[in-house]
Amino acid sequence: MTIPEKIMEHAIEVCQQGIAAGNSPFGAAIATPDGELIHAAHNVVRQTCDITAHAEINCLRGACEKLGKIDLSGLIMATTCEPCPMCAAAIHWANLETVYYGATIEDADTAGFNELHLSCQSLYEQGKSNVKVVTDILRPQCADLFRQWQQGPHPNPY
Amino acid sequence: MTIPEKIMEHAIEVCQQGIAAGNSPFGAAIATPDGELIHAAHNVVRQTCDITAHAEINCLRGACEKLGKIDLSGLIMATTCEPCPMCAAAIHWANLETVYYGATIEDADTAGFNELHLSCQSLYEQGKSNVKVVTDILRPQCADLFRQWQQGPHPNPY
Repeated sequence: MTIPEKIMEHAIEVCQQGIAAGNSPFGAAIATPDGELIHAAHNVVRQTCDITAHAEINCLRGACEKLGKIDLSGLIMATTCEPCPMCAAAIHWANLETVYYGATIEDADTAGFNELHLSCQSLYEQGKSNVKVVTDILRPQCADLFRQWQQGPHPNPY
Repeated sequence: MTIPEKIMEHAIEVCQQGIAAGNSPFGAAIATPDGELIHAAHNVVRQTCDITAHAEINCLRGACEKLGKIDLSGLIMATTCEPCPMCAAAIHWANLETVYYGATIEDADTAGFNELHLSCQSLYEQGKSNVKVVTDILRPQCADLFRQWQQGPHPNPY
């Protein structure tokens, strides 16, 4: 198993905790390039009544708090689903080096989520960002989170 | 003075409070279409060590909390500067009807902020969002906030 896959396992695990608690099926983890976990978080939009509380946003906020800085240069993120433009831009502002994702915006759309149809890679190219994007990290396991969510306690997209 | 201009005055006022407290020069206000203020907030990235704490994000979070809901359909936002892609997408997720802005991403770039060069309007068009964008609301007053910030206690872009 590669380091990005190991970090993605943290993102999947926290996502499953979120599903069990009635949240939407998205999880993210920030780590060092050699795999040391800094912070993992799941979506809590419904739980906290905060429309901005996507997994990646929560993960960035938690990492900033833990490290006591807003510049997360040199760190990487694994996220179970392709970041939406809100999360993609937040990852850019934090200066993360690379974002690895599993499921795609299309997978989320198929599961019933009303997505903004603008890919993470395209946003970075148009915005002239240096963040690197790597796709297809444990994609089957990540896409399966939507199935687990549909069988969970609260399977309604918000 | 039009209703959007009146709402923008709230955004400018809260922005000036933020500048005085050492924050970056961005403010936003959410209101009903007839001008009743729901919530106003300024950037607190530096103050709270949270890279996601742009004015618009804070304003959305505050409005969700005050109203006890994540769907802000029918409400509008005035923001002193064109929303970055993070904030533009968050405004979409909250289902705001219209976003009015004053200064542009280019104005922010000129003031020293390292912007993602993707306009709010273009993001909504590409993403197939229904949020309406109205530019040039009190733009001179909004652009002047960058000058006020440069003479304030903490004139360094984060």
